[in-house]
Amino acid sequence: MAEQLKVTIWNEYRHEQSSDKVREVYPQGIHHAIGEGMGGEFELAYATLDEPEHGLTQERLDATDVLIWWGHKAHREVQDEIVERVCKRVREGMGLIVLHSGHFSKVFTKLMGTTCNLKWREADEKERLWVVAPGHPIVEGIGEYIELEQEEMYGEHFDIPQPDELVLLSWFAGGEVFRSGCTYRRGQGKIFYFRPGHETYPTYYNEQVRRVIRNAAAWAAPSTRPAPVYGNSKPLESIGRA
Amino acid sequence: MAEQLKVTIWNEYRHEQSSDKVREVYPQGIHHAIGEGMGGEFELAYATLDEPEHGLTQERLDATDVLIWWGHKAHREVQDEIVERVCKRVREGMGLIVLHSGHFSKVFTKLMGTTCNLKWREADEKERLWVVAPGHPIVEGIGEYIELEQEEMYGEHFDIPQPDELVLLSWFAGGEVFRSGCTYRRGQGKIFYFRPGHETYPTYYNEQVRRVIRNAAAWAAPSTRPAPVYGNSKPLESIGRA
Amino acid sequence: MAEQLKVTIWNEYRHEQSSDKVREVYPQGIHHAIGEGMGGEFELAYATLDEPEHGLTQERLDATDVLIWWGHKAHREVQDEIVERVCKRVREGMGLIVLHSGHFSKVFTKLMGTTCNLKWREADEKERLWVVAPGHPIVEGIGEYIELEQEEMYGEHFDIPQPDELVLLSWFAGGEVFRSGCTYRRGQGKIFYFRPGHETYPTYYNEQVRRVIRNAAAWAAPSTRPAPVYGNSKPLESIGRA
Amino acid sequence: MAEQLKVTIWNEYRHEQSSDKVREVYPQGIHHAIGEGMGGEFELAYATLDEPEHGLTQERLDATDVLIWWGHKAHREVQDEIVERVCKRVREGMGLIVLHSGHFSKVFTKLMGTTCNLKWREADEKERLWVVAPGHPIVEGIGEYIELEQEEMYGEHFDIPQPDELVLLSWFAGGEVFRSGCTYRRGQGKIFYFRPGHETYPTYYNEQVRRVIRNAAAWAAPSTRPAPVYGNSKPLESIGRA
Repeated sequence: MAEQLKVTIWNEYRHEQSSDKVREVYPQGIHHAIGEGMGGEFELAYATLDEPEHGLTQERLDATDVLIWWGHKAHREVQDEIVERVCKRVREGMGLIVLHSGHFSKVFTKLMGTTCNLKWREADEKERLWVVAPGHPIVEGIGEYIELEQEEMYGEHFDIPQPDELVLLSWFAGGEVFRSGCTYRRGQGKIFYFRPGHETYPTYYNEQVRRVIRNAAAWAAPSTRPAPVYGNSKPLESIGRA
Repeated sequence: MAEQLKVTIWNEYRHEQSSDKVREVYPQGIHHAIGEGMGGEFELAYATLDEPEHGLTQERLDATDVLIWWGHKAHREVQDEIVERVCKRVREGMGLIVLHSGHFSKVFTKLMGTTCNLKWREADEKERLWVVAPGHPIVEGIGEYIELEQEEMYGEHFDIPQPDELVLLSWFAGGEVFRSGCTYRRGQGKIFYFRPGHETYPTYYNEQVRRVIRNAAAWAAPSTRPAPVYGNSKPLESIGRA
Repeated sequence: MAEQLKVTIWNEYRHEQSSDKVREVYPQGIHHAIGEGMGGEFELAYATLDEPEHGLTQERLDATDVLIWWGHKAHREVQDEIVERVCKRVREGMGLIVLHSGHFSKVFTKLMGTTCNLKWREADEKERLWVVAPGHPIVEGIGEYIELEQEEMYGEHFDIPQPDELVLLSWFAGGEVFRSGCTYRRGQGKIFYFRPGHETYPTYYNEQVRRVIRNAAAWAAPSTRPAPVYGNSKPLESIGRA
Repeated sequence: MAEQLKVTIWNEYRHEQSSDKVREVYPQGIHHAIGEGMGGEFELAYATLDEPEHGLTQERLDATDVLIWWGHKAHREVQDEIVERVCKRVREGMGLIVLHSGHFSKVFTKLMGTTCNLKWREADEKERLWVVAPGHPIVEGIGEYIELEQEEMYGEHFDIPQPDELVLLSWFAGGEVFRSGCTYRRGQGKIFYFRPGHETYPTYYNEQVRRVIRNAAAWAAPSTRPAPVYGNSKPLESIGRA
C-alpha cells in the first residue's frame, strides 16, 4: 500500500501533431494532460503509437500496474502482437482504463468480444454524466453528475457486454443517452471504460473527470495473487474408483 | 410462435471416427445424439468440421436461429473466416449454445474475450449440476440437480467473464466446483454455455441434459428486431447552437 | 404453451375517481386501459385497492401467472398482510410487472430491499426510452427508442439494486436520465420494472408501451418447477465419518 | 487512507454462554475471535444482542464504517427498530459483512428482499471454498481455495438475489455446492456475505478466513459522498414549454 501504483498512459498522439485545433487544446498531447491530472499519487510513464513497439514493450508492461488507453483514428495501426501482449497482461492482472474513442481499439474490442459500435455526433453539445452507483469507489468525490459544456455525443445502442457494474450514465442535449462508466473483469484484470474526452475539447483538464480517472486507476490496481492454475488436475478427494 | 425454430447442430465429428470407444457411445456422432434429444419441437440441420466451409456456409447460418456447438481436439482447424462469420451471426441475433469442450473453441473465446481456460480430469467421476436460478426458463422441468454418474471433471477457476445469469453449478466427486450453466448476451444474440458432454460418456442421452438443451434453444431464439443503427447521427433535439 | 397466461392487473384506482383530469384520460381506470393493450393473448383479471383484500385474495393470486401493479398515492393503505401474500407468490414463481409510481409500492420496495427513491418532476416534458439490450425478448418489436411527447420525469439516482438486466434507459428533456426497464429475479419469480405511465398522460394507449408490457408479461411467465427444498438435508455422498 | 477504518463486530453471543462445546472453541465469544483476526489495521468495537439496543445505538452506528454480523438462534429477538436503523446506515454507506448463519438475520433478509433460505447439515464435513473472481480485492492473498476440515454444510438452492459479484463457491464432501462469497450494493453501502463459521468449529481462527474478512472490511469502506438527492427537482435544461 505504501508503494505507488505504476500507471502508464498510452496515447495514439496523432491528432495533436496533425491538427492545430487539437494541439491548441493539448499542446503536449492528451497523455500529458491526463498525466497532470493524476496528481502525485501515482508513478507515471507514457507511451505512444509511433514509438517502437508502440512504447509497449514487455518490460514496460511488466512495470505497469494500470494502463490508460486513448486512441482514435489509427486503431488499425496497432500491431496485433502488441494488442495480444496488452490483453495478456490484463488477464494476468494489469488494470486497464479505456477512454472515449478507445471503445473501438483492438485491445478493448478483443477483451469485450463485441463490436463496441455506437452512435456519435460532433456538435459541441452538452453532456451530463449521472452517477448511478453512488457508493462505488470510482465516483468517490464526485457530485450527482459531471457536466461538460461541450463534448462529442456518443449514443446507445453501445454494443458492449452488459457491464459488471454500471457506474455512470450520460445525457446529451441532442436527445441520446449512453452507458459512460462501465466496469468489467477479464481474467485477473479489472477494466473501466470511461466515455468523455474528444480531442477537440478540454475535457481532460476538468477536475471531476480527472478525479474519476484517478479513482479508476486506484480501483483497477492489480491483485498480487499468483495466476490461477489450469489444465490437468489430480483429484483432491477419493472418487471411489478401484 | 407457430413456426419451428431452426436449430443447426455443429459437431467436430472426429473422435467418433478415430476412436472405437467414442463410436460405441455415439455411433452416428454426437450431433445426431443431440438431435434425437431435441424432440419434434425444432427444425434440425447438422454441420461438421470436415464439410466444405465446415458446413457453415452463409446460407446455412442465415437459415439458423440457434447454433449448437460441440468441438474438442480440432479447434485450431476451424478457419478464422468461418469463426468470424459465426460470431457476426450471433451479434446479429442468432442464438448459440456451446457445449462442454467447446469452451476452448475459437467462436466462444472470441465472443467472451477471455482464455476460457479451466481445470480438467478424466476419471469417470460423478458430477452433480445444481440449479441456482430456479425460475430460469433454461431449467424448466429440471429437478434440484442433474446427476451424471460418470463425467470428465471441469474445475474452477474457469476463465470467463462473469455470466449475465448463472443458472447451474457443478459439484465433482474429486473436490472441485464449476459454473456449468452460464448465459451471456453479445450484440442481439443470446449465448448459453452448458458444461456436460465428454465424448466417452453417454451424457447426451440423459433426459435432463436433453431437456436443458431444448430449453436453452427456445430461450436463445433470435429477436426479429432490425439491427441497431450505428455511426454518425443527427440530433433528435435542438442543441442550442447558432 | 397452448394455455393462455393469466394476467391480473392491479390498480390503486383512486386518481381516476378523484380527478377529472385523470378520468378524462382513463375513464375506466388505468387498469382497463392496460388491459385493452394486452390484446387477446392473455386471460385477464382486474383488482383494485378498495375491493376487499384489495382484490388480491389468495384464490386470485393462486390463479395469477403475472401480476401488473400500478399504484401511487395510497401505497401506505395497502395492508402488510396482502403485501406479504403478493411477495410470497412472486418468490413461488408469479411474475410481477411494476409500473411507474409503483416504484414506491410496499411490494416492490420489499422485494428490492432498497428505498427505490428517485427524482421526479411534473412538467409535460419529453421522454425517450432507449433500448440498451437489443436482443432481449421484452423489447421485441420495439424500435431504437420509444418517444413519449409528455411524461412525468423520473431521474437518477434511482435507489434500486443493480438490475440483473438493464433493458431500457430514459432521456428527459429537462436534463436527466433514468434506468427505465429493469429485470430482477426473486426466488422463482421474475420481476420487471417499467417506468412510464403517469396518470395524467395517455401513455398506456401508446402502442410501443403496450407492446413492452405484453412482452414483459410473456417473459415473466412462471416456471412450473416445484418449489426448491430447503432445510436440514441428508448427505448425498459418503462424507467419510465413522 | 491514513485513518483506520472503524469496524464494529456484532455477535448474538448466546451459544457461547449456553453451550460448553461452543465456549470451548470461542471462550471470549465469536466476536472476539473475529476481532483478533482483524490485525492492527482497524479500529475495533464490539456489540452483542443482550446489551441495551443490542449495542447498536445510533452513536455506535454513526461511528461505524463497517459492521460485521454473526447471529443464529435469536434472529427474532433483534428488535425491528434496530434492524431498520442498521439497514438505514447501510443505505447511507456503512459497509456490512454478514457471516454464516447471519443469512437468516432480519438485517440481511430485509436488504436482500428474499427469504435467504438454504439447505444445511451438521456433519463435520469438509468444505472447500474456490475462488471464482481471481482479481477481486476480497480474495487478495488467498490461494486457489480455502479448505476447512470440518464445517456445517450449506447447500443450494440459496434463495438470494443474483450477486453483483460472485467471489467464492463452496464444495462440500456430502455432495452440495454453495455460493459462499457474494457482493451486493444497497444504496451507498456495500455488502459481503461470507458463508463459513459454524459456532462449533474453529473457523474464525483460520488464517485464510481471517484474511477474507479483513479484505472484505477494507473493500466495504464507506464512500464519503454526500447522500443522493431525491424528490421534486427543477429542470436543468429548458424543456420548451411556454
